Amino acid sequence: MLTFNECQELIQRQMDRLDLPTAPSQLYDPIRYMLEPSGKRIRPSMVLMACNVFTEDVNDALYAALAVEVFHNFTLMHDDIMDQSVLRRNKPAVHVRWNPNVAILSGDAMVIRAYELIAQSSPDKLPVLLSLFNRTAREVCEGQQYDMDFEHITAINLDQYLMMIRLKTAVLLAASLQMGAIAGNAGAADAARLYRFGLGLGMAFQLRDDLLDVYADQDDFGKVTGNDIVANKKTALLVQALEASEGSLREALLQWLENKEAPREEKIAGVRQIYDTLGIGERTKELIRTYHEQALAELDGLSVPAGRTSVLRKLSELLMNRKK
Amino acid sequence: MLTFNECQELIQRQMDRLDLPTAPSQLYDPIRYMLEPSGKRIRPSMVLMACNVFTEDVNDALYAALAVEVFHNFTLMHDDIMDQSVLRRNKPAVHVRWNPNVAILSGDAMVIRAYELIAQSSPDKLPVLLSLFNRTAREVCEGQQYDMDFEHITAINLDQYLMMIRLKTAVLLAASLQMGAIAGNAGAADAARLYRFGLGLGMAFQLRDDLLDVYADQDDFGKVTGNDIVANKKTALLVQALEASEGSLREALLQWLENKEAPREEKIAGVRQIYDTLGIGERTKELIRTYHEQALAELDGLSVPAGRTSVLRKLSELLMNRKK
Repeated sequence: MLTFNECQELIQRQMDRLDLPTAPSQLYDPIRYMLEPSGKRIRPSMVLMACNVFTEDVNDALYAALAVEVFHNFTLMHDDIMDQSVLRRNKPAVHVRWNPNVAILSGDAMVIRAYELIAQSSPDKLPVLLSLFNRTAREVCEGQQYDMDFEHITAINLDQYLMMIRLKTAVLLAASLQMGAIAGNAGAADAARLYRFGLGLGMAFQLRDDLLDVYADQDDFGKVTGNDIVANKKTALLVQALEASEGSLREALLQWLENKEAPREEKIAGVRQIYDTLGIGERTKELIRTYHEQALAELDGLSVPAGRTSVLRKLSELLMNRKK
Repeated sequence: MLTFNECQELIQRQMDRLDLPTAPSQLYDPIRYMLEPSGKRIRPSMVLMACNVFTEDVNDALYAALAVEVFHNFTLMHDDIMDQSVLRRNKPAVHVRWNPNVAILSGDAMVIRAYELIAQSSPDKLPVLLSLFNRTAREVCEGQQYDMDFEHITAINLDQYLMMIRLKTAVLLAASLQMGAIAGNAGAADAARLYRFGLGLGMAFQLRDDLLDVYADQDDFGKVTGNDIVANKKTALLVQALEASEGSLREALLQWLENKEAPREEKIAGVRQIYDTLGIGERTKELIRTYHEQALAELDGLSVPAGRTSVLRKLSELLMNRKK
């Protein structure tokens, strides 16, 4: 069976062979730049790993894997314009390195390239792969829209937040696994289980990302950055704190949110203290644990020998223990 | 056989049933707005008409037709951001009515919707339809990029300009016809002929658009606007004039291009006089005639009774005689 690293390397070699045209250069250079090997290739590797659960030959999953990776990078290219993010993987974002128009049109060419890749799947599997890919792509757009909407609304509850990260992040991981399973000739029940495994893992992964911003050091996960707190970012932590707090504690939280002059470390410490009082860290850890356990239970339910899922289990541990 | 008007009405009824979600509203409202029945539905009608050349039942072509229309409107939504066009079909463009981020993300959701529509084609035709759709979509992006590139380069020759409008405009008309033919079970040779018919028609159509801006009144085609001249737009006329002019005539043309203070009517008259001296209007009419005749010759070559192509012939006359 292929390890995660072997899948990453396999994807990398295929990415090198994408064979993008050179002209017009303003259209294709940014795509090459965006697809340089700085990404971790998690999603396409998941496609291959899911396929490998059911068959030794993962070649049938390659095009779906590449399509997912190209699609994911398309969403990043457009999201960076909308979110005004200037850096992506420690390099200037495309709309900064070139300009927003270039990032719009190169992104468009990129999503079409993703469809060109998926179209090369074997014809008998194309309808079901394409349909899953389409639904997922639509949901990812919906997730990005909700994310932008929610930034302007104080009263987001946890359920709304979970719905948003499910769409924006989790469904693409889930679909990656299901596409791999389909390419590997898995039965419908097994393919659906892998989708749900990916959904749970994706939720846990994103919630952990929120947690690490505030509580990383306590469990030796890496460095606390506090960037989300400073930026008033609507994370699972802030959303739960806004839902749970009352009276003077709520007043204090709202004051921190409105305070634009507070020194950075002071604001981080202040908000964190409120989180501590409300037990937000523990609540979030519990939520992560639940999603992660639900995800792993889906693997147990697969109709394959337990050994076939060991690589996916290892990946899930890796994602859950990664340092920021 | 269905007339153009009947095809338009059929498309309109199907567009009304697209059944877009309502939430998130910032994502889907702009798509509904963009797809309101102000467009002429030329491309999707061409899909149906091409199908109808080969079979009475055009139902198999409906999804491809809708996909083409939604895709076309996606390109308009993103082009309007890039070109800073404020009006589209006499209404504010989406990036003006909402904002650029909304136009980016709604456009993304729209291109995905186009793929959701094409994916509903019958499975036996899906691979070939999808592959044609993908190639065409990529070419349209390349055309838009060349169009933007060329605005910053004085020395564009006619061949480069023709390549650009082929990609930006003609290939989508061509692919619309070929997709309809494929849906109608046409043979490969007939489908390819319809593609070339659409290509010639698209070239003639776009060149005529360039011509009408300057020479509309002379042949009672409608009103001269001169907007392209005022904006220094790289049209077939300007490109040919820059290629053909020498000495003092070229100097005069370059001076008009650099002159930003000239009164509108003065500039239009001045540039037009240079075009007249160089015979640019006649050259362009000759080019249009050649493309149009080549297009019609493709219809003659189809392996169907001549009567089956009468609707397409009428459409081509309509497009060639339309007033601005």
